[in-house]
Amino acid sequence: MEETKISNSYKIARTLRCRNTRIPGTLGRLTTSMGMVGADIGNITTVHVGHHYSVRDIEVFLDDEEHLTRLKKAIAGVPDVALLEVRDEVLTLHTNGKIRMVSTVPIKSIDTLRKVYTPGVAEVCNLIAKRPGYKDTYTSIPFSVAIVTDGTAILGLGDIGPVAGMPVMEGKAALLEQLVGLSGIPILIDTKDVEQIVATVRHIAPTFGGIHIEDIASPRCFEIEEQLQRDLSIPVMHDDQRATAVVTLAALINACKSVGVSLDEAQVGVIGLGAAGLTIAEFIMSYTGKPVLGAARTEASLQRHAARRGIPSTLDEIMAKAGIVIATSGVRDLIKPAMIRKRQIILPLSNPYPEIDPELALKAGAALALDGRTVNNLLAYPGLWRGTLDALASRITYDMYRAAALAISGATEQGELVPSPLMPQVHLAVAHAVAKAAMESGVARRTLGPDYFENTDVKAAWARAL
Amino acid sequence: MEETKISNSYKIARTLRCRNTRIPGTLGRLTTSMGMVGADIGNITTVHVGHHYSVRDIEVFLDDEEHLTRLKKAIAGVPDVALLEVRDEVLTLHTNGKIRMVSTVPIKSIDTLRKVYTPGVAEVCNLIAKRPGYKDTYTSIPFSVAIVTDGTAILGLGDIGPVAGMPVMEGKAALLEQLVGLSGIPILIDTKDVEQIVATVRHIAPTFGGIHIEDIASPRCFEIEEQLQRDLSIPVMHDDQRATAVVTLAALINACKSVGVSLDEAQVGVIGLGAAGLTIAEFIMSYTGKPVLGAARTEASLQRHAARRGIPSTLDEIMAKAGIVIATSGVRDLIKPAMIRKRQIILPLSNPYPEIDPELALKAGAALALDGRTVNNLLAYPGLWRGTLDALASRITYDMYRAAALAISGATEQGELVPSPLMPQVHLAVAHAVAKAAMESGVARRTLGPDYFENTDVKAAWARAL
Repeated sequence: MEETKISNSYKIARTLRCRNTRIPGTLGRLTTSMGMVGADIGNITTVHVGHHYSVRDIEVFLDDEEHLTRLKKAIAGVPDVALLEVRDEVLTLHTNGKIRMVSTVPIKSIDTLRKVYTPGVAEVCNLIAKRPGYKDTYTSIPFSVAIVTDGTAILGLGDIGPVAGMPVMEGKAALLEQLVGLSGIPILIDTKDVEQIVATVRHIAPTFGGIHIEDIASPRCFEIEEQLQRDLSIPVMHDDQRATAVVTLAALINACKSVGVSLDEAQVGVIGLGAAGLTIAEFIMSYTGKPVLGAARTEASLQRHAARRGIPSTLDEIMAKAGIVIATSGVRDLIKPAMIRKRQIILPLSNPYPEIDPELALKAGAALALDGRTVNNLLAYPGLWRGTLDALASRITYDMYRAAALAISGATEQGELVPSPLMPQVHLAVAHAVAKAAMESGVARRTLGPDYFENTDVKAAWARAL
Repeated sequence: MEETKISNSYKIARTLRCRNTRIPGTLGRLTTSMGMVGADIGNITTVHVGHHYSVRDIEVFLDDEEHLTRLKKAIAGVPDVALLEVRDEVLTLHTNGKIRMVSTVPIKSIDTLRKVYTPGVAEVCNLIAKRPGYKDTYTSIPFSVAIVTDGTAILGLGDIGPVAGMPVMEGKAALLEQLVGLSGIPILIDTKDVEQIVATVRHIAPTFGGIHIEDIASPRCFEIEEQLQRDLSIPVMHDDQRATAVVTLAALINACKSVGVSLDEAQVGVIGLGAAGLTIAEFIMSYTGKPVLGAARTEASLQRHAARRGIPSTLDEIMAKAGIVIATSGVRDLIKPAMIRKRQIILPLSNPYPEIDPELALKAGAALALDGRTVNNLLAYPGLWRGTLDALASRITYDMYRAAALAISGATEQGELVPSPLMPQVHLAVAHAVAKAAMESGVARRTLGPDYFENTDVKAAWARAL
């Protein structure tokens, strides 16, 4: 039955146009046969309903081209069904990129031109030259976030270079705009040298309200985030560390609640101390006040964990001792079902292949298991940035990250472990919590009042003026 | 009568709400008195027409706050007129900046999210990793232009720093989008060191289809443009040199036609060999094949001119010998009326204060005089970028600049010297001419066909797909 398992790998998406004879049960037989070869079925849209036939577009996610071949073969074996067309709509969606810079001021007359451009613009320039704080009022700087990558750790694909990583950076920017109304500006850097990356970002930093570091490989990502935050007076956040750790903490809080385990008292172990693992361990230690066991392949990783007051450990020790096991090792099937202990909470988070299939973990006795698809940092980074920038915070403190995790946890519907990232209210809740924590942390340069915190109209909230 | 002169300085714009008694001639008396104190009147909008009164918003451009005080005093002296309010709409227009990055793909369902973001995006990344040329199809890179400044020569305001220059960079980006549909990405650089600027831009260059250098002071701007173009395989253009020279050449071609002078045979002299002057001289020499006289304060500037086969000269010699005099010295009133010879063509281009008031030059016998307000580089840079990027050109050759100048000259209406920059067809004509020249210059990496060149629908032309 291995074929029926839906794989977690990075998939290709295709749209199949199928013509079914209008005999009851045809769609059922078609989708059953598709499921039997492991196709992950998405939206089904009816294109045409005729007297004898129905035509439908069926979206599927597949492992690879070979998988598609198997699927086509399976469909060919279903009576009363004809596969008319296979379309690749992913490439169509990504054609010409997914973002564009637009003017927010319509310039239709020479008079407007004279205000927006010369000579009128000189007045605004002079004002900022005299009082630099006006940049937060009369430019887009405080709403702009640089999305910086060197392309060394793009998704789970590894070091494919910054240009090949651009579709991911554009996706981050597109979502930043759609979810919280901020301008994400991809910045692709053509060097892997830490000093050069830091110098480059530092030199262009005046352009932005914040620096979002994306998909830079460990351990350079730690140094880069740290050095930049030390040098700059605007917030710097490495998404793969911070946002992932925030969402993991939120999911963990809810997971513990759902199975009646006390997070504060449980022993937590983290397997794999890369960008995500190290910071997940750090956040959990800050949250519970208790040390976390950490296992890693390299001595350097274990030392970094120890420097954050974690306890260096091993895979076997963690599996034997920890009630809660989080794995971010990147190693597929690292955790064998035999290692699972009864009532363990298991989070095998590596993408695209988890350390153990959640279903196998549950069968082996785990109280709860969830993989990396659930812990989507898209839940955290938009609201984190919006709240941070709304408060004009100079950096993002642990308290702000913690507030984001609690807001995500609190916005989760009964029975779920995290909310849907497309729920607009989640991002509003995160932004409010983060902005409040920024003010309480003493890093906010703007004091936000009840008008800000009591607003529940998402569209109005993301309007720019504050 | 000096008060009646409309100054060319960088002005402040204000909107005056005036209530006039409905007696014929009141508006005439009001605007006359406003003109008498040198107010440059823009749009007049009727806000309310009552039985006894009319209320109008009158937009004015003024030298400074002191000028506004004089204007208010003048209006107070006009019978039957009450000044109700003075508003600063420039600041309102610039509030929160003038640009934002937006998503071009609506992400409303989880299925779309899975195509735009993970897991679907991995397919696009892998494709580009395998065949890098696909970046031109599946990312926004080929439509994005970095607008880079170090803030050392913002407008005529000088070295006010990159952040105070942001309103100008945003204006450039806003116009780039509105006029030709490209994404302009301001990049503010916090160093004035040539090597650091070059290294910074080089490291982030993979993000962009082209590098637009803006308001960087001479002589560093020459080195920066040259070094970057040598190091990069995408086009680099210093706006203040190239676009200004293109528009000057276009205006000069039309000026010569209008007064019956042969540009090819006339002696041309350029006074002031900064970023604009040096390149204006260079382009005119390339265009006519004849050397241009050049005068400058520093020996280094004269040497740069000589290196481009120009003839070092002096102000007096140029005024005495040249039939066409172009001044870009930045020195107000440098040219005295007594220096003007009969039938000279005079272009005193410095902003905000020309080397001689065009009217004084005409009175002194010049055949034609026009100042920097006419020669707006907004006429050139949008079409230059669009044509260059459409052809995927690796750099911008002189032939492409020349083609832009001829296109601007050709798009000028009878009786004018340059077209209005808000005429969409001008930018389309420039883009087509530049793309064609790119293909003929051998620098184009894309071959454009009749569909491209014969299209006259501006909106369709700026749609992204090619």
